[in-house]
Amino acid sequence: MKIHWPVLVALAGVAGPAVRGAAEAPVPAVTPVRARDLGVPFAFGATGHWNAITDVAGVAVGHTTLIEGESVRTGLTAILPRGRGEDATRPCFGAVFALNGNGEMTGTAWVRESGLVEGPVVLTNTNSVGVVRDAVIQYAARRWPPRPGGAWTFWSLPIVAETWDGTLNDIYDPHVRPEHLFAALDSAAAGPVPEGNVGGGTGMTCYGFKGGIGTASRVLARAQGGYTVGVLVQANHGRRQQLLVAGLPVGEEIREGAAPGDEMGSILIVVATDAPLLPHQLERLARRAALGLARTGAVAGNGSGDLFLAFSTANPGAGDGEGLPALTMLPNDRMDPLFEATVGATEEAIVNALVAARTMTGFRGRTVTALPHDRLREILQRHGRLVPAAP
Amino acid sequence: MKIHWPVLVALAGVAGPAVRGAAEAPVPAVTPVRARDLGVPFAFGATGHWNAITDVAGVAVGHTTLIEGESVRTGLTAILPRGRGEDATRPCFGAVFALNGNGEMTGTAWVRESGLVEGPVVLTNTNSVGVVRDAVIQYAARRWPPRPGGAWTFWSLPIVAETWDGTLNDIYDPHVRPEHLFAALDSAAAGPVPEGNVGGGTGMTCYGFKGGIGTASRVLARAQGGYTVGVLVQANHGRRQQLLVAGLPVGEEIREGAAPGDEMGSILIVVATDAPLLPHQLERLARRAALGLARTGAVAGNGSGDLFLAFSTANPGAGDGEGLPALTMLPNDRMDPLFEATVGATEEAIVNALVAARTMTGFRGRTVTALPHDRLREILQRHGRLVPAAP
Amino acid sequence: MKIHWPVLVALAGVAGPAVRGAAEAPVPAVTPVRARDLGVPFAFGATGHWNAITDVAGVAVGHTTLIEGESVRTGLTAILPRGRGEDATRPCFGAVFALNGNGEMTGTAWVRESGLVEGPVVLTNTNSVGVVRDAVIQYAARRWPPRPGGAWTFWSLPIVAETWDGTLNDIYDPHVRPEHLFAALDSAAAGPVPEGNVGGGTGMTCYGFKGGIGTASRVLARAQGGYTVGVLVQANHGRRQQLLVAGLPVGEEIREGAAPGDEMGSILIVVATDAPLLPHQLERLARRAALGLARTGAVAGNGSGDLFLAFSTANPGAGDGEGLPALTMLPNDRMDPLFEATVGATEEAIVNALVAARTMTGFRGRTVTALPHDRLREILQRHGRLVPAAP
Amino acid sequence: MKIHWPVLVALAGVAGPAVRGAAEAPVPAVTPVRARDLGVPFAFGATGHWNAITDVAGVAVGHTTLIEGESVRTGLTAILPRGRGEDATRPCFGAVFALNGNGEMTGTAWVRESGLVEGPVVLTNTNSVGVVRDAVIQYAARRWPPRPGGAWTFWSLPIVAETWDGTLNDIYDPHVRPEHLFAALDSAAAGPVPEGNVGGGTGMTCYGFKGGIGTASRVLARAQGGYTVGVLVQANHGRRQQLLVAGLPVGEEIREGAAPGDEMGSILIVVATDAPLLPHQLERLARRAALGLARTGAVAGNGSGDLFLAFSTANPGAGDGEGLPALTMLPNDRMDPLFEATVGATEEAIVNALVAARTMTGFRGRTVTALPHDRLREILQRHGRLVPAAP
Repeated sequence: MKIHWPVLVALAGVAGPAVRGAAEAPVPAVTPVRARDLGVPFAFGATGHWNAITDVAGVAVGHTTLIEGESVRTGLTAILPRGRGEDATRPCFGAVFALNGNGEMTGTAWVRESGLVEGPVVLTNTNSVGVVRDAVIQYAARRWPPRPGGAWTFWSLPIVAETWDGTLNDIYDPHVRPEHLFAALDSAAAGPVPEGNVGGGTGMTCYGFKGGIGTASRVLARAQGGYTVGVLVQANHGRRQQLLVAGLPVGEEIREGAAPGDEMGSILIVVATDAPLLPHQLERLARRAALGLARTGAVAGNGSGDLFLAFSTANPGAGDGEGLPALTMLPNDRMDPLFEATVGATEEAIVNALVAARTMTGFRGRTVTALPHDRLREILQRHGRLVPAAP
Repeated sequence: MKIHWPVLVALAGVAGPAVRGAAEAPVPAVTPVRARDLGVPFAFGATGHWNAITDVAGVAVGHTTLIEGESVRTGLTAILPRGRGEDATRPCFGAVFALNGNGEMTGTAWVRESGLVEGPVVLTNTNSVGVVRDAVIQYAARRWPPRPGGAWTFWSLPIVAETWDGTLNDIYDPHVRPEHLFAALDSAAAGPVPEGNVGGGTGMTCYGFKGGIGTASRVLARAQGGYTVGVLVQANHGRRQQLLVAGLPVGEEIREGAAPGDEMGSILIVVATDAPLLPHQLERLARRAALGLARTGAVAGNGSGDLFLAFSTANPGAGDGEGLPALTMLPNDRMDPLFEATVGATEEAIVNALVAARTMTGFRGRTVTALPHDRLREILQRHGRLVPAAP
Repeated sequence: MKIHWPVLVALAGVAGPAVRGAAEAPVPAVTPVRARDLGVPFAFGATGHWNAITDVAGVAVGHTTLIEGESVRTGLTAILPRGRGEDATRPCFGAVFALNGNGEMTGTAWVRESGLVEGPVVLTNTNSVGVVRDAVIQYAARRWPPRPGGAWTFWSLPIVAETWDGTLNDIYDPHVRPEHLFAALDSAAAGPVPEGNVGGGTGMTCYGFKGGIGTASRVLARAQGGYTVGVLVQANHGRRQQLLVAGLPVGEEIREGAAPGDEMGSILIVVATDAPLLPHQLERLARRAALGLARTGAVAGNGSGDLFLAFSTANPGAGDGEGLPALTMLPNDRMDPLFEATVGATEEAIVNALVAARTMTGFRGRTVTALPHDRLREILQRHGRLVPAAP
Repeated sequence: MKIHWPVLVALAGVAGPAVRGAAEAPVPAVTPVRARDLGVPFAFGATGHWNAITDVAGVAVGHTTLIEGESVRTGLTAILPRGRGEDATRPCFGAVFALNGNGEMTGTAWVRESGLVEGPVVLTNTNSVGVVRDAVIQYAARRWPPRPGGAWTFWSLPIVAETWDGTLNDIYDPHVRPEHLFAALDSAAAGPVPEGNVGGGTGMTCYGFKGGIGTASRVLARAQGGYTVGVLVQANHGRRQQLLVAGLPVGEEIREGAAPGDEMGSILIVVATDAPLLPHQLERLARRAALGLARTGAVAGNGSGDLFLAFSTANPGAGDGEGLPALTMLPNDRMDPLFEATVGATEEAIVNALVAARTMTGFRGRTVTALPHDRLREILQRHGRLVPAAP
């Protein structure tokens, strides 16, 4: 029996990705599995409830997944830092870091200048950045009228980023359209976040395995402020031999079946937190995402667009244009636990993307195989690194 | 009698802007006038033959100007660093600098990372960046098949920048379409460059006067290497009172009629040179554009997207993927004349944009008036700064 | 009656420059004259009471001027953002910008990372950066014991910057010693700031004239927040022909006597404000200093170390290590008057340095002549730009 | 029997560190041991002959080690990119990257601006940066007269970096003097590089174990160009629990005896290569050092000054001031093997520092223990990660 994603997701109580014209798209009949379910150990503290970017209160994620015929394997993922309600347009402090700039993330000149993330962060495929970018402006003009005292023109500089899914997706045929963005924004939700072959991650490849969307989180101890750090990645990077899981050379051990288009990819990393960080502190967080990425074996190859963005949902007045907004700031010398949390959640989000993704066949009949769970467990077991699954 | 731009331009022997569906758009029956024609003095040496970015050999510029009905006042301008022939896709060394990042220039993460400008640099309005960006990818896929040993996927990261023409143009109605980009690229040419209300500058406002496209150049003395620096601006920035011409407070003296939307704008500056500069040296040139801008009185207001890009047409092998390209480099300590040239040509290009622009009425019946040439001459005369026009 | 600088300064209740072993060092018998006294017009609003960086409440400045024999023409200038009292070690938000990095400013890696300026900013000659830097650590260890909840080790990363005075000063003979730093810190004061051949500016050359220390300020209108911006420069940059005063080509008109060592120099610019700006906003202010510099004709030559630093004295808790400091922030879209103030005060501080400096003979009998006040007034007069002196 | 370092080093055929006034300083009577000798596996290819930064032809390293009485545990390490012969002052292309800027590296404004590393790179303790910096200027003025056509004043901007050894060293007592720099420069040599408690690394602490100097290298396959990448670190960073060796949580397993002053430190990483990389490409290499660091578990804590520098010994004309230097460049899309080499050599250099360092007692009787080799081997063995020692 074939179960389609929407059904599966509904069964699992997960906010579903909007799958367009994909009635026939087969989805493996499995319950979502995550890296910790397989016994992979991770560092740097406890996860949040969903072990997802949505553990940061207010953050909403919406996917549009496009799987049609033999050639359409793409989509987009929208992250709304303050949800899709009345605060959707309320700016957050934010920052960006480019570990390797072979990619596109629009809107970053203004993030750097203003220290603000205004509106959604959208992840899609390389050739659809333009259409999605202009569509955000259109959506905002219709749905988000200017707030009193707020700026309106900011909607002119949307944040849209990309990785290349041309291995599995007929990327030169413009499948992503404005209504796909609208659907993702309208369906964005808190709670669990579908991973793997969904949204912007639908057609992505990672370390020569099927990749895509992954997410994870960390919650600091109360004595450290009790803050949450959530990470979401669109993982499309890396050569097979480089892959480390739990520090072990898994990519060396599973050499067979590395995908075509190996190392043509990139990784987008979005870091969310509710810790009251100023823009220059968020840039520090964005930079730490590189260290989490490195723990999975990446070297940020020349062809990789490794672009990271961090934002904080604290300081609701960050973008207020009236008076002098009252802010708070976490002192620099209390940031170390946040650095650890970012590194840990980034590493885990990437492994979650690999674990959640399913083998996919697409454009020109190419197939990219998923990381085999049994092989992964065997390797962990053999090296004394398998841990009991979280309850 | 009404004379349309294409006719005028043809008469003047100028490569004409492609005016779409604009049969009724009236264009003032005047011969193009430039700042030096009015007796404005400029610093830092001699101009090139056209006093334009096209004085740098190989550089081609194409405009598509969209003037229709009451609400369409926009367009786009494409700069091809190596022309539109077989070298169109040959990368140049390049760099960017953001003086104030309230704007968009796509493709810059890769320019920073690779040190390369690959393909055209396109200037358009804010809300059309996306459609134009995706259209560059489409154009390249069709017209510019991959060169042997060259990368193809670079066409995934086009460079498209914007300023806001929403005062005169109904910017939320998507007038700019892919075919407008194709037309600009197909018509791009060396030689004189139309200025003022053309291409991406069609609906722009500068220091509360009508602004738009401007260009200028400098040629170094033979003892300094004989290099050329050409600058092209899309000028849409500044408050009236700030304007300086030849160091004189012209904006203070001509206070009347400052345009609505004053200081909602931005300026894009593109610096071209044939001096053999490496990417980090070109970043130095891009930074100097800020100093030329400052000489016209600008302070780079918060709302201004002041994004600058510099490229060098030297080193044809800059982007070669085979072997070890042989390069040359101008030593750092010989760069001062290039710095002066960049500052001088930038200042002059901005004043040229103001001088060339014509009064325009557009969206919602708004009118932006041109800098009155007679008033400008009178001010220069009164302060003993009027110089004889260049022959 | 003629009053010498030291006397005048004492009479005015000003902490005088500490002149070491310079009993015989002649000081020109003139009353301090500033650019506005000569009728030079400046843009962008009203000055503060002293027209100095010390108009920003709390800021203290101390000079040590070393003039001995024929070869010693150097010194150092210390700026204490929060004075030399108990708040001396309380961090400020701060930021830096390098317009041209041919110079040294220690401590900037931490300013960039932390967003904080901790302790004094010291300006001296190129070859004395090291001794002064280590001496700041020693001074802090003795005089400024750690505050409760504060970090102590920060004193390991002092901010010391330089320009090259080797034309007039025997720079390879290490004249600047730790006690000279201690004296400047111990004598730092609010109030008027001696300009010209004092402190770190003692032996400096600017546009081929004698240069040195200059300062100026702007106070915003109440409706704009009433904030103050103060600027202090150590001006040692530029070629004679480049010099503009009030937009006029003064350097072209006064060609004679350009100093040896023309354009081997640099300019340091320190911007202070009491506006509540966050670090990323202060970086924007630091960048605007470049625009003020450009209005004096500079192109930031290859040999110039044009390093700028901005700090805000608002937000006393900026560096608190306990709890969550309560902060305020000026919204980005209210920053334009501060940008104008920074540009205006920077331009004026540079001209003030030129006007205050006196002709000096030093190392190897070299002489650098001062900008002739009468010639300057004549040029302004002739171009209709002379304004009545401020009352 | 006690054998002092100089003796040991001489016996081992190693260019010895210059130990000043340290006749009584006991050195453990052991042969230098390196991580591969203990069976630690490393990724990304083969090492060079010495597995040291000196595998890059021309690079010379000199240490001055200061161990005296109970309180002096410090020193400095000088790296001469082109050796100490006649090419010592010939500039190299270079670049820097700050992963976390809580540290000092002087001279970097000019490295960023010029793309050049001119003269030595010196590593020392925090409070001695100034004295060493000024001493480089003095040394250069005496020993390295200006080359024809070369700049002389560059010696005004030395590159001197630091980490904090105040746990074991009485850092506020200025032990490091100019003659110590001169000795290191005069003794700098190619060949094997002493590691651990030597030079600038003498008193350093890393992951709560004794740290210090470490080095490693990689040589690319001939098909990849056969280039060499060498790395040298001064390792003084990290919390015990974070330490990973070969991906295994060694710090979690060896919890006892974490040093006082845990995580007050920093790491300096210098990357050398003979691949013909331009400055912007070297910045990419410097950034990859962060990924190697991450593989040892670091998160770049707030208190850490993680400053990296990369240079290329190719392109001997990089800094020529005459004519147009002829250069070559490795294409960007051939850089991946260099990225892997940098990541691999950085990881290995850090573990080499830990393996080479010996337990040390110093200031105030504090002791920092070395990483126990037997425990490390046992952990590797238990997890099936012990490899046969290299021959």
